[in-house]
Amino acid sequence: MLEAKIPRATSEKKASKRKSQKFSSADALLNAVSELFIERRSLNISLSDIAQKSRLNSALIKYYFGNKDGLLLALIERDASQSLVALNALLEMDSPADRKMRIHIAGIINSYHRTPYLNRLLHYLIGNGETAASKKIANFFVKPVVEAQRAILTQGEHEGVFRQVDAEMFYFSMVGACDHLFFATHSLQPLFGELQVTEDLRRRYTSHVTDIYMTALAKPRNESAS
Amino acid sequence: MLEAKIPRATSEKKASKRKSQKFSSADALLNAVSELFIERRSLNISLSDIAQKSRLNSALIKYYFGNKDGLLLALIERDASQSLVALNALLEMDSPADRKMRIHIAGIINSYHRTPYLNRLLHYLIGNGETAASKKIANFFVKPVVEAQRAILTQGEHEGVFRQVDAEMFYFSMVGACDHLFFATHSLQPLFGELQVTEDLRRRYTSHVTDIYMTALAKPRNESAS
Repeated sequence: MLEAKIPRATSEKKASKRKSQKFSSADALLNAVSELFIERRSLNISLSDIAQKSRLNSALIKYYFGNKDGLLLALIERDASQSLVALNALLEMDSPADRKMRIHIAGIINSYHRTPYLNRLLHYLIGNGETAASKKIANFFVKPVVEAQRAILTQGEHEGVFRQVDAEMFYFSMVGACDHLFFATHSLQPLFGELQVTEDLRRRYTSHVTDIYMTALAKPRNESAS
Repeated sequence: MLEAKIPRATSEKKASKRKSQKFSSADALLNAVSELFIERRSLNISLSDIAQKSRLNSALIKYYFGNKDGLLLALIERDASQSLVALNALLEMDSPADRKMRIHIAGIINSYHRTPYLNRLLHYLIGNGETAASKKIANFFVKPVVEAQRAILTQGEHEGVFRQVDAEMFYFSMVGACDHLFFATHSLQPLFGELQVTEDLRRRYTSHVTDIYMTALAKPRNESAS
């Protein structure tokens, strides 16, 4: 047994130190990747770029994350979990469903705007056809969002302000609608002369997507009285 | 697509023969890639896979398309141009705007469904950060679609059936909405137990996206009479 070889008295302290070192090095690697993505506006970074930025040996990537894709998956997990915390707080709010839905739509667009690489990274990891990565993304990111939206839609139906829509299809169309401006950056230059989504474009897009979905969800006035 | 450099001194007959050979070999390469993408449900194909499938030397890829990305860009151009022909025919139709918009939405979803690799390929080429490829995609694909949608939206406003919406933002949100089910295939399995978009899911999604956008576009009844 491996355990028997380590004296108990010292192992706890050592394990604790090792654990905190692990987390700080792993975090340093994640921060380095995040900063490089934002600086370069590209996913084209090498292991040695990450090593240089984090001042850590690139062998640590293999140690903590298995490979570069494992590191990227961990970065998505970290960034997406911030959005999920906000989403859970939204669900707990004592507010009418239409207000929650407006906040949710703006929240999705803001998180794509705040973390401009998130979307490309998600697309890159999925595009790679890595089944394990795809399943992980579905479980930690997609399912909670689908459930949260279903809860808001149901609340809105009970309050008599939303008509019934297909909640699962709603997830795909609404997230796709929020996502596309930030993904299709190739279209920004010819259409708006901008190379990235400016603050003004973000506001204009939020206003448009909110308008489309809130109008589409609203129960017609003559029906809401019934 | 890269034009092959043909010496000026060649006779017209020779040039014509070479031109038709060029087109048939180039087409054979494009067909091979398209078939491989559909067979394998993946973008992971090598130059030697393409050579084997097309029974042509892989050096011809470099000759006709510069490199593999050039070949992929030409494939997108070919497949997207079929959709653009259909879109132009739609614009010429003597039909009310709401009917045109319904056909347009179903058409976008159908083209993603018919050519399942189109979307991943577009995402792959854009994700590569190839500025030349991104610009080409914007010019041959995005601009014509934006203009077509603007024409249908304007027609609908004149006919008194559509309210005014932000036509440029509409392009991004609507195409994003149509696109996401086919891109986010990682979410299909956990949500529906399906590994790809079935005929039934396609119909359900078309019905949902059409419902959302047609409801959102409709001029409220009390206003349409004014």
